[in-house]
Amino acid sequence: MSLDPAISARLKRNADGLVAAIAQQRGTGEVLMMAWMDDEALHRTLTTRRATYFSRSRQQYWVKGETSGHTQHVHEVRLDCDGDTILLVVDQEGAACHTGDRTCFDADVLLS
Amino acid sequence: MSLDPAISARLKRNADGLVAAIAQQRGTGEVLMMAWMDDEALHRTLTTRRATYFSRSRQQYWVKGETSGHTQHVHEVRLDCDGDTILLVVDQEGAACHTGDRTCFDADVLLS
Repeated sequence: MSLDPAISARLKRNADGLVAAIAQQRGTGEVLMMAWMDDEALHRTLTTRRATYFSRSRQQYWVKGETSGHTQHVHEVRLDCDGDTILLVVDQEGAACHTGDRTCFDADVLLS
Repeated sequence: MSLDPAISARLKRNADGLVAAIAQQRGTGEVLMMAWMDDEALHRTLTTRRATYFSRSRQQYWVKGETSGHTQHVHEVRLDCDGDTILLVVDQEGAACHTGDRTCFDADVLLS
């Protein structure tokens, strides 16, 4: 099985065939991280409810938390108005960031 | 004046010289939209506190709300761990989406 053609038709992929995916913590609204998905990653995310991305550097699928245990259980998936960005509302287990921070935006404040 | 070299050195731009920028409503945590910035757009955003993006389709700077009045006053700017995504915490005036929706993620729910 692959991604629902009705959804696939609404995606506006970049030159690498990817759309951006933003993960947000359910309830608190924290923006946790941004990563990338192709059609298959989105399909896997929608059907398994485990956030699955496509790694541009490694050119492979990546189930968030598969090695770290820091999984994302997916409650909601939304596509934006121009079809190039996805919002995932998730329950993040532990740290979302590979540095150990709760979110990937915790460490570097440019303006406050 | 241009972007602080210490910040510029931390940016990991894509092939078009851009980083992704996520706008989030202060307080509610709503994810409003995703757009793109180059160094100059980020510099203008940091110095004016008015969210300023770079339009890929029009190849020009774009002060959010300049024509619609739906401005974004910027309270906080954060850079993510790998330097390719910026998070803006803003006060959104009116609708963030050009369709009139509050956010660009309101209309198309793929999973709930």
